[in-house]
Amino acid sequence: MITYNIANSGSDSLYEFLGKSMKHDIIQGVLKAGDKLPSKRQFAKNLGVSVMTVENAYAQLMAEGYIYSIPKKGFYVSDFKYPVQEENTVLHSEMVSLTGEEGGWLADFSSNQTETGLFPFTIWSKVIREVLNDSRVQLMTNSACGGILALRESIAGYLKAFRDMHVKPEQIIIGAGTEYLYGLLIQLLGREKVYAVENPGYRKLEKIYGSYGVPCRWIAMDQAGVCTSDLENQQADIVHITPSHQYPTGIIMPISRRYELLGWASREEGRFIIEDDYDSELRLSGRPIPTLQSIDMSGSVIYMNTFTKTLCSTVRISYMVLPEQLLSQFYEKLSFYSCTVSNFEQYTLAKFIQEGKFENHINRLRNYYRRKRDSLLEALQKRTQRDMISISGEEAGLHFLMTVHTQISEASFLERARTRGIKLVPLSFYYYGQTRKPENIYVMNYSSVDITKADEIADKIYKCCI
Amino acid sequence: MITYNIANSGSDSLYEFLGKSMKHDIIQGVLKAGDKLPSKRQFAKNLGVSVMTVENAYAQLMAEGYIYSIPKKGFYVSDFKYPVQEENTVLHSEMVSLTGEEGGWLADFSSNQTETGLFPFTIWSKVIREVLNDSRVQLMTNSACGGILALRESIAGYLKAFRDMHVKPEQIIIGAGTEYLYGLLIQLLGREKVYAVENPGYRKLEKIYGSYGVPCRWIAMDQAGVCTSDLENQQADIVHITPSHQYPTGIIMPISRRYELLGWASREEGRFIIEDDYDSELRLSGRPIPTLQSIDMSGSVIYMNTFTKTLCSTVRISYMVLPEQLLSQFYEKLSFYSCTVSNFEQYTLAKFIQEGKFENHINRLRNYYRRKRDSLLEALQKRTQRDMISISGEEAGLHFLMTVHTQISEASFLERARTRGIKLVPLSFYYYGQTRKPENIYVMNYSSVDITKADEIADKIYKCCI
Repeated sequence: MITYNIANSGSDSLYEFLGKSMKHDIIQGVLKAGDKLPSKRQFAKNLGVSVMTVENAYAQLMAEGYIYSIPKKGFYVSDFKYPVQEENTVLHSEMVSLTGEEGGWLADFSSNQTETGLFPFTIWSKVIREVLNDSRVQLMTNSACGGILALRESIAGYLKAFRDMHVKPEQIIIGAGTEYLYGLLIQLLGREKVYAVENPGYRKLEKIYGSYGVPCRWIAMDQAGVCTSDLENQQADIVHITPSHQYPTGIIMPISRRYELLGWASREEGRFIIEDDYDSELRLSGRPIPTLQSIDMSGSVIYMNTFTKTLCSTVRISYMVLPEQLLSQFYEKLSFYSCTVSNFEQYTLAKFIQEGKFENHINRLRNYYRRKRDSLLEALQKRTQRDMISISGEEAGLHFLMTVHTQISEASFLERARTRGIKLVPLSFYYYGQTRKPENIYVMNYSSVDITKADEIADKIYKCCI
Repeated sequence: MITYNIANSGSDSLYEFLGKSMKHDIIQGVLKAGDKLPSKRQFAKNLGVSVMTVENAYAQLMAEGYIYSIPKKGFYVSDFKYPVQEENTVLHSEMVSLTGEEGGWLADFSSNQTETGLFPFTIWSKVIREVLNDSRVQLMTNSACGGILALRESIAGYLKAFRDMHVKPEQIIIGAGTEYLYGLLIQLLGREKVYAVENPGYRKLEKIYGSYGVPCRWIAMDQAGVCTSDLENQQADIVHITPSHQYPTGIIMPISRRYELLGWASREEGRFIIEDDYDSELRLSGRPIPTLQSIDMSGSVIYMNTFTKTLCSTVRISYMVLPEQLLSQFYEKLSFYSCTVSNFEQYTLAKFIQEGKFENHINRLRNYYRRKRDSLLEALQKRTQRDMISISGEEAGLHFLMTVHTQISEASFLERARTRGIKLVPLSFYYYGQTRKPENIYVMNYSSVDITKADEIADKIYKCCI
């Protein structure tokens, strides 16, 4: 078994020392691609450290892409030949939580999981039962590639009422998650196009574009969102943005930048904007800004949204709204695909929306999350040390940014929080390339945090600052 | 509105004449890409023919890829610039039935739809109810990329009991339909590989490979299945086969060819066999042959199966079994994807299998389909004209081949059947390229045919022969 002399750790914490030593051995080829690493328990025993130390070191190496895990088998060294790994490349925290067996945090600010109590089990069960009783023939009739008509009509009605968007049901394409829909879009728009994403942004997008082998560029952002000039510089064809609530910065794109982007798109044929409106339903305060889709006259906007935030992350239903100009191409090229969402869930969701139950649920969610956010912010801001922390991007969605004003390095702050049972994701994780990255700003996904512990959490966060 | 002089139809049937005339105008550019065609009703009125005639002509042009339809909007001329259309290219009949509004057939031998009465609604409802009551926390916990453990374990148990396959749960990857899994495999194995499919074969595969922009070759078949020599000739890396019951010929690949293929695969690194076992559960008679997966020692077989045939076509759950050698690569490259099947349906299916309900259901299905097949074959064979028809590939699955011994052309036979309310798909539809195609052999998907009308159907089929 590999071993390290923990006595040499110097000023590093034990887990940092272990992580760095292993990283060094991986880069130097002492640990080779595919090598199986010792189990956490055994490694800890051998090194004479706690299992938590090994766990932290492995988690860090996983987050940085040096190692990966296979469920029920163990941890392995990654192959650096593909995809090319930069020192700075990190994987989205979701990958870590998918493959690790984490849990037992006082507060996990990295998780997007829906709290069990929030899902409307009773109503959902009732609607399923009705659908199973009343719609047997429809349930057994193959869905069109874009989804069943009833659901597409319900969504069109919902978009009209709540987003002032006027779209026809046939423009709406239902799929099993936005990740699946991105794949469809690449097939529709072409692999020779240059795709662009926000920097910082949702790292999974880069993974998807990479997996399809299409060119992907990172576009610089200013205070208003992605910079049109950088889109031109980098010769982007398709840009993927989150204007209602940028992930992770929380920027709400002002109307001026929206028009500027529409201008960019309509300047040349074949340019498209993918507007990802992933958590717009959960705007908690402030005035809503119209979607790009609703102010677009050139047919350059592909609107995308999901029920994974508003219903639960484990029911996989998302949709996109194609502009009219892409419709024929979509039906001609891709209508041979079967819809990836089962009829049972499509009919259940359609009925749930039609009967106003979705609207009620959203209202309930919004109140719940508003209270949750307020309690957490209040707990953070009533402390005497409140000047050490500032909050931004809290108007919308299920995350905000927390800037910590401290001399402590980000790595140490993360480790301090970790040992206190608080899992944080730094904003710097979402940056690509050699851009100057912010230090000590954290992306606080608070949706799964137990808010009865708000004071305890706030206390521990402040304890990490000093 | 375009018009044609129906009086000039000569010996062609009216729909054939109309189809040919329109095809001519499309090729000559009189009808241009994107042109909207008149509605069936109006066109029929203008030409002085029945709506059925226009419908048949449009269906034919759609099947050949000259026109396409947008639901609720109408019919349009295809763009011939992409994808390159050969005279012989036809789309899979599923596309037609997805986009058309067909129905009202005496017997539709093209449909794979599950009969409403066959789905175990009562038991399924009960299982869903139990899952919704008892497994709330699990339902809200994000599934691993390959699916929830309970379902993967159930499937592993099922494969062991019924296919004598010994696989670990982590080798099983759940996805929303095999089409989705093919996409994952392309991302896993690489777009530079040469993919090969059976000729004749399931046309959708070619569409998927085409949509991903990967090279796809058609491999010649003999009486035992795909020819290994042609795989070598065409420099295939990955071959996709249906050895248990070849679609559409019904050939059951003998063990000798299975070993030959395994030999081909293990001869060079990077070669893989995708074994699509899509309807093996519905083998109705004869001795089962072991899967390639179970006799493969070189780790070259990717086994694939689906619940769309055994449960219903509208619940989208399929799975693949990866060989151990691909596991690390899969988890490293693709584990960032969320599973495309909702937890609700994964847990329901897992329980359904665990409690033996799936096995009971399969047994019921098998008996039902055996009776159905037997009634239909009996109705066809008890007629005095029985020498005009021969049947093959009836031992397994939900389709067989019917060869018609007649002087009538295939096109005329199809039209005769159509006017009698019988929808047939000729075997020649599934052939690619300039290969000599069989005439007057029909692929009889009998699963959705109303068997109480077996005699009427048989009578009508014989009437078409003379």
